[in-house]
Amino acid sequence: MVKVRIKTSKRQELREITVQVAEAVASSGLQEGLVHIYVPHTTAGVLINENADPSVRADIEALLSRIVPYDFPYTHLEGNGAAHVKSSLVGSGVFVPFEDGKLCLGRWQGIFFCEFDGPRSREVWLTFITAAKT
Amino acid sequence: MVKVRIKTSKRQELREITVQVAEAVASSGLQEGLVHIYVPHTTAGVLINENADPSVRADIEALLSRIVPYDFPYTHLEGNGAAHVKSSLVGSGVFVPFEDGKLCLGRWQGIFFCEFDGPRSREVWLTFITAAKT
Amino acid sequence: MVKVRIKTSKRQELREITVQVAEAVASSGLQEGLVHIYVPHTTAGVLINENADPSVRADIEALLSRIVPYDFPYTHLEGNGAAHVKSSLVGSGVFVPFEDGKLCLGRWQGIFFCEFDGPRSREVWLTFITAAKT
Repeated sequence: MVKVRIKTSKRQELREITVQVAEAVASSGLQEGLVHIYVPHTTAGVLINENADPSVRADIEALLSRIVPYDFPYTHLEGNGAAHVKSSLVGSGVFVPFEDGKLCLGRWQGIFFCEFDGPRSREVWLTFITAAKT
Repeated sequence: MVKVRIKTSKRQELREITVQVAEAVASSGLQEGLVHIYVPHTTAGVLINENADPSVRADIEALLSRIVPYDFPYTHLEGNGAAHVKSSLVGSGVFVPFEDGKLCLGRWQGIFFCEFDGPRSREVWLTFITAAKT
Repeated sequence: MVKVRIKTSKRQELREITVQVAEAVASSGLQEGLVHIYVPHTTAGVLINENADPSVRADIEALLSRIVPYDFPYTHLEGNGAAHVKSSLVGSGVFVPFEDGKLCLGRWQGIFFCEFDGPRSREVWLTFITAAKT
């Protein structure tokens, strides 16, 4: 398992990690398979979306805070109830395929670590899986 | 990686792709493992839900458009801000187990490509993983 | 594939299954890899979130019912339209890495089966994948 450290700087933030994941795939020496990108936190997540226009991630952040408002009567009294719920809507892991040691993302896709209760020091854990020979 | 082409016909549409995935698993010659169904687009997704009664997918479409309305003040100015957000709520990949070369879906489950910014020509990318011998 | 049986007791309920998954990983005899936790139902799901304070799962349940209300005009006439939509928001599968035969969860993480149309007898299906040697 390869651990990648991330330092977030805002309460909520979609931070792109495509380069770090691509480097880890290249360093693995593997040719074809899947990389699992896992978030070991309960107030963060990971998703894949457009990395060309930063307005897309701003819209995702705005909508998530509309869907899961900060001012709901949460029973969890640590002030981060919304962050826990966002984490479960977005999810704690994604997979990206790779071939010839390179990530196979769609043309507009990037991988984003989602901070929902920052700023904090965070990690993502990468596991590599070999594709079956068919 | 096996690429499956899909032509969608509406702005938003849950299109069942269970048959295409099952055929790809059968053609792989593999007996037991997981198939990864990956959407390389940022305004589409993939999910698993009931395929018996078409009203279920109509309800999912209606609720997604209620949760992520078209008329929000999106900062992304291409008119498909809602599609990007829906894509991240639904997710860009799912796995389905298979045994004896056949998909192991629950009794009521089907696999659906989710078009959120159609109509378009789309792809899903399939990767096969062998289950570990235990 | 290892099948784990779950009996839920409420209409909506996040039931922790971390222990059952950890036991299955230990019994597999495998050292390093990923376990896929798959829900073969269309009105249930699986997610990873905090298991220390039960208020977190109460908040997730409350928010999901706010986002996907029971009293929406669903076209699916079996009374469980909301459950189908929640299932697709939460998702039907998660992966957790393991090393030395032990689950690698973050400090606060647990694995939760999500019942959205209970009480019922349910299953989760576990598949083990070996990590690639790098």
